[in-house]
Amino acid sequence: MPVEKDARLKVKGVREPSSGLFEVISDKGLARLGDSYLNFLYSMALSEAEGKPTGARLKDRTLVEVAKATGIRSMLPNRTPKGRVADSIEALIVYTLLRGMLKFEDMMEVFRRKLYDPVSSLEEIVREAVNRLT
Amino acid sequence: MPVEKDARLKVKGVREPSSGLFEVISDKGLARLGDSYLNFLYSMALSEAEGKPTGARLKDRTLVEVAKATGIRSMLPNRTPKGRVADSIEALIVYTLLRGMLKFEDMMEVFRRKLYDPVSSLEEIVREAVNRLT
Repeated sequence: MPVEKDARLKVKGVREPSSGLFEVISDKGLARLGDSYLNFLYSMALSEAEGKPTGARLKDRTLVEVAKATGIRSMLPNRTPKGRVADSIEALIVYTLLRGMLKFEDMMEVFRRKLYDPVSSLEEIVREAVNRLT
Repeated sequence: MPVEKDARLKVKGVREPSSGLFEVISDKGLARLGDSYLNFLYSMALSEAEGKPTGARLKDRTLVEVAKATGIRSMLPNRTPKGRVADSIEALIVYTLLRGMLKFEDMMEVFRRKLYDPVSSLEEIVREAVNRLT
């Protein structure tokens, strides 16, 4: 699979988990980075939708919904707390950004196409990420 | 001043305050967007510094220190609460990103040069932003 590095959003010398999907969605460091990334991405999409700068944080509930719809939830143990389920989506999406599999602008395009619906946009991004990882 | 739009981080159709520095640092929508942007930028810089993905939120205290050192604090009324002082830095930095005056990668370069010290890095970014705005 050709992986094109994103010149804008690269981080030098960051070790990324090179292994499979389960390792990625379980990585706590990726989840922390992904939390800030997803809130920025969502705030940029929301700003574009509203036609003026604004910001908002994605709720765990929203990310859990995405995890269920895309099958990511079923890869985690049954009793995984809601916050850790949300983490899995944050980790996976920022991982595809760091690896250059999807770029920031690609993700913004998904939000545009999905009329800025966060659940539906993030579902499409996660499906694309899983396709590229497996 | 030549302003090159950043192809990666553009937002379509967002009205930006076209006016002066005071309007920018007082814009609440920009502050909300800037909050998510600065936390993402800082988390990426921190990930690079530590050599592995991680994330952290910038404290208001840190941003107040930057506002004082760069003279932005003195443009705001004396009794402005700490959170609103922090907002002014968030608004200004994301405004320079939206206008393409400084790109994400330019800001990451500042963090690298300043050995990832957040106060010192953000000070340099704010000084550069003010130079380009005034």
